[in-house]
Amino acid sequence: MSAVKNLAKVKHKIVVMSGKGGVGKSTIAVNLAVALAMRGRSVGLLDADIHGPSVPKMLGIQDNPLIAAEDGRMMPVIVPPNLRIISMAFLLKSKDTPVIWRGPLKMGVLRQFLEEVEWGSLDYLIVDLPPGTGDEPLSIAQLIPSPDGSLIVTTPQDVALLSVRKSINFSKIVGLPVIGIIENMAEMRCPHCNQMIQIFGKNGATQAAKDFGFPFLGKIPLAPSIVKSGDEGIPFVAGEDDDVRTTFEVIVDSIIQLVESRKGQSK
Amino acid sequence: MSAVKNLAKVKHKIVVMSGKGGVGKSTIAVNLAVALAMRGRSVGLLDADIHGPSVPKMLGIQDNPLIAAEDGRMMPVIVPPNLRIISMAFLLKSKDTPVIWRGPLKMGVLRQFLEEVEWGSLDYLIVDLPPGTGDEPLSIAQLIPSPDGSLIVTTPQDVALLSVRKSINFSKIVGLPVIGIIENMAEMRCPHCNQMIQIFGKNGATQAAKDFGFPFLGKIPLAPSIVKSGDEGIPFVAGEDDDVRTTFEVIVDSIIQLVESRKGQSK
Repeated sequence: MSAVKNLAKVKHKIVVMSGKGGVGKSTIAVNLAVALAMRGRSVGLLDADIHGPSVPKMLGIQDNPLIAAEDGRMMPVIVPPNLRIISMAFLLKSKDTPVIWRGPLKMGVLRQFLEEVEWGSLDYLIVDLPPGTGDEPLSIAQLIPSPDGSLIVTTPQDVALLSVRKSINFSKIVGLPVIGIIENMAEMRCPHCNQMIQIFGKNGATQAAKDFGFPFLGKIPLAPSIVKSGDEGIPFVAGEDDDVRTTFEVIVDSIIQLVESRKGQSK
Repeated sequence: MSAVKNLAKVKHKIVVMSGKGGVGKSTIAVNLAVALAMRGRSVGLLDADIHGPSVPKMLGIQDNPLIAAEDGRMMPVIVPPNLRIISMAFLLKSKDTPVIWRGPLKMGVLRQFLEEVEWGSLDYLIVDLPPGTGDEPLSIAQLIPSPDGSLIVTTPQDVALLSVRKSINFSKIVGLPVIGIIENMAEMRCPHCNQMIQIFGKNGATQAAKDFGFPFLGKIPLAPSIVKSGDEGIPFVAGEDDDVRTTFEVIVDSIIQLVESRKGQSK
């Protein structure tokens, strides 16, 4: 089935990307998907990181098996009531198995994820891309029909922003609108003395958003609770009601508003 | 020229890798190269990250032009007296230009870096790989003649270690000996109250090293001074004499000992 046909009943498609690795892209993709699901949307989450798929672990579903539908198509793993996930991690024999694949094989599996997975009717399909501007981002950009756009995640240091500017230009070149920029690990609160620490410098992402004219969606702190929630498989938006969660909820609301109003206008 | 012939006068070849992005791989590759050069070794540094080349910025040489030798071969950029660098960043029109390339093109440029760059006589060639186990790591593993092995860099959280175990298995499969594991961003000292903060959990990398039977080379803290040194283009091993630098110097000594004694035995 073509991706256009297979995704015909998917209202919004958002790609979460970053130029640099380790900026918390998967954490944001997972928590965005869960937050949308908690707001009553039906959500699909496609983990497009073939070499380092971490979405299932972050959701605590890494041991779930993939089930084939009766017609042989692939069923996503379902987190009740309304979240559906597909990831390379479900297809590996062991969590330690490296996927030593070159580009064409990766494009093949991403094509399958878009064309052969039984996504059904969705309000949102969130795609968690691996870092960079290589095979996987390019394949997704070329294969996904009428995406709403990309969310670009970064940390504030210059070296990270160098890559963000590449991601923004990548989005332009492949015709993927930029929905907005999220700054992650912006600062952290010392658990001992409660004061804020700027680890990665300051305000670089706000500046990049301004320079390119894209919405700056917000800053997420670096918090041990976020790391813990990822390691334990309990997304922080579904956890304790703290500062981190409140900050993220505001970002989710902005995304919903930007995406749902924009789509409304354009159709 | 074949890589075997072109690298005939390179004594030791070390690949710095990680399964996950953003663990500080480039920071470690750059500082290792500079530390070796400061110990009088002649060192080459090959930045194999095609999409997000950050080595030149970290060395403050991002605006240096590449110069062709008289015979048309590529000259590395030289940081006097004894450090030679090659990076995709030197070949880009602007620092914001994304490299939207699929695997075969990437393999082509990495092949050129190994075969057509005038490396000359080197004690060490350090290769900074992009994260994952895809085209670039595979190309380097297949093209580089008789490497000493890989240094695997990780942060301590479970989600990162998941990828480290993949890197270790990748090394095994492609026949790249693992020299050792380095834990980065292990903990940080609060600049306000001076107490230590465990951001990413604890001791995961020590455990992974034990499980697989590889040397654990040491822990580097997360320090704003490291971020700053990367952003400002002054490697921290060439900067102030502080805890971070002392810790790193011990790791460099271990690497020298492991690599130079091992090579001595095998030849």
